[in-house]
Amino acid sequence: MQKNEVILEAFDYSQDHFRQIDFSSIDKLHALKNPSTTSWINIDGLQDKELLRCIYELFELHPLLLEEIQDVSQRPKFEEFDEYIYITVKMLSCDPVTDKILTEHLSIVVGKYYLITFQEGLAGDVFNPIRERMSRPKSKLRMNGTDYLTYAILDVIIDNYISIIERFGERIELVERKFRGNQTDNILDDIYEYKMEINFLRKTIRPVRELAVLLEKSESEIIDDKTVPYLKSLVDHMAHATEAIETYQIMLNDQLYIYQTRISNKLNDILRVLTVFSVVFIPLTFIAGVYGTNFDYLPELHFKYSYGIFWGILIVTAASMLYYFRRKGWL
Amino acid sequence: MQKNEVILEAFDYSQDHFRQIDFSSIDKLHALKNPSTTSWINIDGLQDKELLRCIYELFELHPLLLEEIQDVSQRPKFEEFDEYIYITVKMLSCDPVTDKILTEHLSIVVGKYYLITFQEGLAGDVFNPIRERMSRPKSKLRMNGTDYLTYAILDVIIDNYISIIERFGERIELVERKFRGNQTDNILDDIYEYKMEINFLRKTIRPVRELAVLLEKSESEIIDDKTVPYLKSLVDHMAHATEAIETYQIMLNDQLYIYQTRISNKLNDILRVLTVFSVVFIPLTFIAGVYGTNFDYLPELHFKYSYGIFWGILIVTAASMLYYFRRKGWL
Amino acid sequence: MQKNEVILEAFDYSQDHFRQIDFSSIDKLHALKNPSTTSWINIDGLQDKELLRCIYELFELHPLLLEEIQDVSQRPKFEEFDEYIYITVKMLSCDPVTDKILTEHLSIVVGKYYLITFQEGLAGDVFNPIRERMSRPKSKLRMNGTDYLTYAILDVIIDNYISIIERFGERIELVERKFRGNQTDNILDDIYEYKMEINFLRKTIRPVRELAVLLEKSESEIIDDKTVPYLKSLVDHMAHATEAIETYQIMLNDQLYIYQTRISNKLNDILRVLTVFSVVFIPLTFIAGVYGTNFDYLPELHFKYSYGIFWGILIVTAASMLYYFRRKGWL
Amino acid sequence: MQKNEVILEAFDYSQDHFRQIDFSSIDKLHALKNPSTTSWINIDGLQDKELLRCIYELFELHPLLLEEIQDVSQRPKFEEFDEYIYITVKMLSCDPVTDKILTEHLSIVVGKYYLITFQEGLAGDVFNPIRERMSRPKSKLRMNGTDYLTYAILDVIIDNYISIIERFGERIELVERKFRGNQTDNILDDIYEYKMEINFLRKTIRPVRELAVLLEKSESEIIDDKTVPYLKSLVDHMAHATEAIETYQIMLNDQLYIYQTRISNKLNDILRVLTVFSVVFIPLTFIAGVYGTNFDYLPELHFKYSYGIFWGILIVTAASMLYYFRRKGWL
Amino acid sequence: MQKNEVILEAFDYSQDHFRQIDFSSIDKLHALKNPSTTSWINIDGLQDKELLRCIYELFELHPLLLEEIQDVSQRPKFEEFDEYIYITVKMLSCDPVTDKILTEHLSIVVGKYYLITFQEGLAGDVFNPIRERMSRPKSKLRMNGTDYLTYAILDVIIDNYISIIERFGERIELVERKFRGNQTDNILDDIYEYKMEINFLRKTIRPVRELAVLLEKSESEIIDDKTVPYLKSLVDHMAHATEAIETYQIMLNDQLYIYQTRISNKLNDILRVLTVFSVVFIPLTFIAGVYGTNFDYLPELHFKYSYGIFWGILIVTAASMLYYFRRKGWL
Repeated sequence: MQKNEVILEAFDYSQDHFRQIDFSSIDKLHALKNPSTTSWINIDGLQDKELLRCIYELFELHPLLLEEIQDVSQRPKFEEFDEYIYITVKMLSCDPVTDKILTEHLSIVVGKYYLITFQEGLAGDVFNPIRERMSRPKSKLRMNGTDYLTYAILDVIIDNYISIIERFGERIELVERKFRGNQTDNILDDIYEYKMEINFLRKTIRPVRELAVLLEKSESEIIDDKTVPYLKSLVDHMAHATEAIETYQIMLNDQLYIYQTRISNKLNDILRVLTVFSVVFIPLTFIAGVYGTNFDYLPELHFKYSYGIFWGILIVTAASMLYYFRRKGWL
Repeated sequence: MQKNEVILEAFDYSQDHFRQIDFSSIDKLHALKNPSTTSWINIDGLQDKELLRCIYELFELHPLLLEEIQDVSQRPKFEEFDEYIYITVKMLSCDPVTDKILTEHLSIVVGKYYLITFQEGLAGDVFNPIRERMSRPKSKLRMNGTDYLTYAILDVIIDNYISIIERFGERIELVERKFRGNQTDNILDDIYEYKMEINFLRKTIRPVRELAVLLEKSESEIIDDKTVPYLKSLVDHMAHATEAIETYQIMLNDQLYIYQTRISNKLNDILRVLTVFSVVFIPLTFIAGVYGTNFDYLPELHFKYSYGIFWGILIVTAASMLYYFRRKGWL
Repeated sequence: MQKNEVILEAFDYSQDHFRQIDFSSIDKLHALKNPSTTSWINIDGLQDKELLRCIYELFELHPLLLEEIQDVSQRPKFEEFDEYIYITVKMLSCDPVTDKILTEHLSIVVGKYYLITFQEGLAGDVFNPIRERMSRPKSKLRMNGTDYLTYAILDVIIDNYISIIERFGERIELVERKFRGNQTDNILDDIYEYKMEINFLRKTIRPVRELAVLLEKSESEIIDDKTVPYLKSLVDHMAHATEAIETYQIMLNDQLYIYQTRISNKLNDILRVLTVFSVVFIPLTFIAGVYGTNFDYLPELHFKYSYGIFWGILIVTAASMLYYFRRKGWL
Repeated sequence: MQKNEVILEAFDYSQDHFRQIDFSSIDKLHALKNPSTTSWINIDGLQDKELLRCIYELFELHPLLLEEIQDVSQRPKFEEFDEYIYITVKMLSCDPVTDKILTEHLSIVVGKYYLITFQEGLAGDVFNPIRERMSRPKSKLRMNGTDYLTYAILDVIIDNYISIIERFGERIELVERKFRGNQTDNILDDIYEYKMEINFLRKTIRPVRELAVLLEKSESEIIDDKTVPYLKSLVDHMAHATEAIETYQIMLNDQLYIYQTRISNKLNDILRVLTVFSVVFIPLTFIAGVYGTNFDYLPELHFKYSYGIFWGILIVTAASMLYYFRRKGWL
Repeated sequence: MQKNEVILEAFDYSQDHFRQIDFSSIDKLHALKNPSTTSWINIDGLQDKELLRCIYELFELHPLLLEEIQDVSQRPKFEEFDEYIYITVKMLSCDPVTDKILTEHLSIVVGKYYLITFQEGLAGDVFNPIRERMSRPKSKLRMNGTDYLTYAILDVIIDNYISIIERFGERIELVERKFRGNQTDNILDDIYEYKMEINFLRKTIRPVRELAVLLEKSESEIIDDKTVPYLKSLVDHMAHATEAIETYQIMLNDQLYIYQTRISNKLNDILRVLTVFSVVFIPLTFIAGVYGTNFDYLPELHFKYSYGIFWGILIVTAASMLYYFRRKGWL
């Protein structure tokens, strides 16, 4: 559900200058193109087509971008244009109440002196740590340009990925503990849910690894050599994230497979009990049935020790059955 | 079933000129080779060998192409010749009535000033949006040449791929909802059908990704630098499409595996009920059988409290069985 | 089983000249080294060591080749020497009677003006269409040299691959139709046989893709630029073939997996019937057993309405069991 | 659990000089920057932020490193800076008491004349063999610089990896021996535990292979050409390690799959016994039941040979059942 | 078990000279460094450390090699040094008595005029064909240098790989024949053993493919251009070997999977028989039980045709059950 209001905010800063601009009208944006300071324009909500068109014209964006920024189903990607870099990613966050993963589409246009972020406007952003650091005069953000700001934004987003992925470690242990405690009730539903979730994460996060590599290897003049080690660390984090997803996928598969084998084992237990009981008693019941018949001439019925012998036969039969099962290792 | 009639249409346009040509005779095609305007010749149906040969001679195509255009079993591919580019893809559309996927083979020959599309002529094309945009004077199609038209055609085709792939999202949710509602009736048939369909999509669509990459990287002079960002967006869409197919394949496999495990679980439930009931009653029936025998000397039958004791034994036996099963966790 | 006779044939042709040479003695081969015409020497059967040695000396082949040509267990490969190219493939054909796949090893030595094919001599070759086209004066074969002849030979072989692979489409539909018709009798044997066959095809055909790529990329002066588009089409056909094999492998795996799940479903059906029946009747039989005992003091036997009440108890017991199963969804 | 005390040690050596420095204060570290000798500073424990900051300033490390050294969740990586190389790995060792794998995070900064190791300070290190060799005057360590020391440290770590991986060979044989001895009790738990452990090893060790390759290919001037063959042997060891992990993963999967099939086989055995017994006795019990009825007019009861014939029918019935099962191969 | 004696042999040869040297003392080795002849020194057994050290010094080997030659757990590898090439492989042979695979570690040092082989000394070598060919004056071995000798040694080793791998073809057919003959007894043990064996082969042989490629691509001056086609054929053989291993792995997996499905099918058969029998007889036995009760007022017992009607009810009940199962397709 899209919120009604588009939220706009802009920050203009340099090493010894910081200003938050409240722009009700677009006109103020002109000032932000000034190359002496770095500007961050953050637009939260894509429903105001007029606003997007103004920005498109002001910053002379490629016509393709105007369309792409509004298409929130896009896959993460990185594209270099002459004057700016275009980046698309998904921001993930974890709803503290429902424990569901919230997704928010984000497009970033990085120019030499300005950076514009376009949020889908659904789930809120993860930028608070950046706003906070930006206001501190000695922070690295203030010392550096839009390339470092790009790093900072992606770093926050990737940190959220990793914290979401790492919940799977706990979940897999939870399933393991249920295994140990012989609670098999909802394990299958749990595993299914986790598998679907990790498939979703894999699809969402994997292309970001590629994106990070392209960003690090980019020879765009927007990116200063000093920033490259930071971008390299993004690549490393993404490698960590995708490897963790892969490992958790393998672990969930293993757990499911082990679970299925446990069920088969349990089935064997159940049927061993049934078989042992049935096989021991079936002949006994038959023998009793024979001496319950009403034939006129049934000599065994009339001997004095018949009933004792009858019990003897029953016990011997049962005992030999039990001995047979013991030797088979079923008892 | 091939339609009888071959449908021909041609469009001739430039920035300030647009003409649809109804060509009953081939002669009019000569005029379309004129370099001052861009021409699109669309041939729907491959059964008129004579027509194909005329076009082959008029546009001086490679002899190999004459064969290949008529072979509708070909896999999507991209090939550069000196004077033109040759592209083959499958158009997919979804029959609105039967919900089946319709396939239509398409070959495209892209010259500097002309573009020829050869359709198999089975299922109809997906080009209506292009025809419509072409007739609007200020559209980008009119501003650009055959390279942009190629982009527009492939874009429409790939959009159809993506909308067909995205139906799988809903289908997987449908299966999931059936899981939840414990309707397991047709799940297996559904999963099987979806798996076969997605295998078909994978086979049909995957080579198009390669094709899009080759097209974007092509250094043919037919492709203007301005068009390259558009071709890049095709590559991105194909990456999105193939990743989605891969993810849905994994999800269907997971669902099938989970479904199988659910069946095993159900089997265990069924057999637990059978086992508990059988094992509780089998000894009781045996004991009753023993006292149904007709031995002359069966002392227990004649004591006054025998019948009461008999019930006592039955109840104790049943209770101890039930206690045993409760401890095993089967109740 | 090797045929006894080695079959030799040779064709000598140029644009306006065609001659089939019946060579009983090796001497005539000298004439074929003549650079003004193209010669194709076809040897069907490898048992005549003396003949092989003569050819080896006449055409100055590498000593390694003499060994390799006689080793029919080799994997498909492509190797460039200074004066000639060496190619090894398997020819596959489908025995029309037994529907079995026949394999025939083939080595090809391609010089600038001669081409020699060495067949294993087991199953016959697939070259008839080439012989026929060669005899037609205006055919492309006659217009071109050994490079085009190489293409023609490989094209015929690869066409046979594709027609053999495409049988799997029908087979998979056959299994599907058996599924639908609930005939599960031989499905497992069918799937097993198809799997083994497709494994064999994959092993035999996959290296040929590599071979085709190497041939197309070869910078040997034997291969004329005009022939390259034809070799490219071989690469495309091999890509088609290997992708089809891969898809059919996935489909067979899916079918096997679905089949196994169907069996589990059937097992559940069988055991549900057994369980419902057993559980309904087991207590009834027990109750009847109780009143079949011969205790002297068994008061219920003597009341007037006992038998009616007895039936009432039986019916109530059975009905409550059935109600229980209905609620569990087993009926 | 982090130990309270940070342990510091430093070694200063050259070909004919060796000194262990006990540095309570940071000041002594200044002396170690001296290019005429090689220095190894080992810091065991990361909790003393002040110490880390001093080292960071003294050796002029990149600000990113200060953060990364303290982040023990990092994935193994290799990064080249202008003046030094930064390496991160996990040290694994096997707790001799509990047989658990202990993990210790390690960061290494390699300068031209100094090498600093930062240990997490949890599980102890594996460096004793290095300390010992360093004190021997003619050892290769003493003859070479920091590049050889880096090799020596990584070599010790990788040797520990390999000895931990090789325990899996014994474990798989153990499972195999349990298979042979028909002990199936804890096999499933064992396999599950081994699978989880090998997943952990794979995740931890695989990136080190990449790291080793990057180190060997590095063109940093810190690494002398003489050391390259040693670094190559690290790459080989890591290839060995990752291949062994892969093989053991496949073997564990195979064992699990075989185990599951064995369970199914056992289930068949159990149910064959149940079926044969039930099917043989069910009709017998029914026949006995018929002649246990109390109908007034039941003529068979009154013939003299009825009881003998009755037994005859029972025996024939049972025998024909057994014959039927024998022919089906169930006996 | 290591043999006690180290076996030494050396061969010195050129085109027209061949001498086998029996060297009890190391001194004679000096003569073998003579560049006018090619020398092969073969050391079978690594326990004589003194000998190894002498060779190490005489041929000026890298210190790393001294260690590596003695480490028989190493993975196959190829390494180029300035003056020689170092190769490590495993020799496999098949014990003719036990049909077990024997492994023997082999290190090869190839100089320009000498080649040294270091065998582990466990299982014997596979070099007899080489010794034999070397003694023949016109053999290619005698015409060529150490590069060809290297090829000859590796060729013999790889031929042994392939003959060991090809046994799997027969084994898989054996399993198949057991399938056909319905002998399912030891299939599982067979498949397990073959799977473990093929895993071992894959681990041992796969790195040799890499090694062969590196050897072929090597630009070492030890390797003459004339030898390259021979080394290329080694690469092809290794490609053949690894592909065959892969195919057999897939085939064994397929067989195991099919086997498991066959077991499930058999289980269904068993339980169908049980269910049909139980369900048909359970109501009959119940009805007989009802008329076996001893109620005083049980009117049906006293009618004249009761017993006939009783049988009629039994038969109708049984028949309707059987009809029900027939319609379900279980009979």
